Amino acid sequence: MLEPNFEKGNGLIPAIVQDYDTGEVLMLAYMNREAWLKTLETGKASYWSRSRNSLWIKGETSGHFQTVREIRIDCDEDTVLLKVEQAGAACHTGYRSCFYRKITAGGVEIVGERLVDPEDVYK
Amino acid sequence: MLEPNFEKGNGLIPAIVQDYDTGEVLMLAYMNREAWLKTLETGKASYWSRSRNSLWIKGETSGHFQTVREIRIDCDEDTVLLKVEQAGAACHTGYRSCFYRKITAGGVEIVGERLVDPEDVYK
Repeated sequence: MLEPNFEKGNGLIPAIVQDYDTGEVLMLAYMNREAWLKTLETGKASYWSRSRNSLWIKGETSGHFQTVREIRIDCDEDTVLLKVEQAGAACHTGYRSCFYRKITAGGVEIVGERLVDPEDVYK
Repeated sequence: MLEPNFEKGNGLIPAIVQDYDTGEVLMLAYMNREAWLKTLETGKASYWSRSRNSLWIKGETSGHFQTVREIRIDCDEDTVLLKVEQAGAACHTGYRSCFYRKITAGGVEIVGERLVDPEDVYK
């Protein structure tokens, strides 16, 4: 199986996460080789947390797992695109997508949909 | 205007590029502050080339410019999502999207659409 090039990014590649059905871009996270293999093995998206320096199974705290339906790899083989079925909200703020704000001339405008109160999820 | 946090990525942020009309993810590139400001000023996507170490106006060689219709910023303010009108092909290989290959158990399967022969574009 083709494996991404983890060397270029010092062991990490960005993973773009897109809703399989709607095409909405949900988030971007990083994977090391361990997270990549874990994702392939389990079918649930796993990442490498740069802030916590640890493997992170998306949804393990919140229950908002991402079931991977398709994986694309880019021309340079240093970025992957995961098409997923998202349970609940992708964003830790409770919005469906992390990209819930549009940049405008005056600042930002909230355009995303808040699904859950993060205080109910991360206790 | 809200500005991305360039510090976390040593001066660079990833920019996900999505087709404004179809929602197809076209590519991922990196921006420094100069590329960010250039994009805002011109309305055409500009990036920072990590391999050439220079500002890169997407389309300046190929003519395949990206007209930015909307910019989203993520919860952590360290990733942006550009929704663009893509002229021609986003990928230097001639495919519309850089994510033209799907990873399968057996290897990869080409699922993207090749629009142009790169030899005709990059002479």
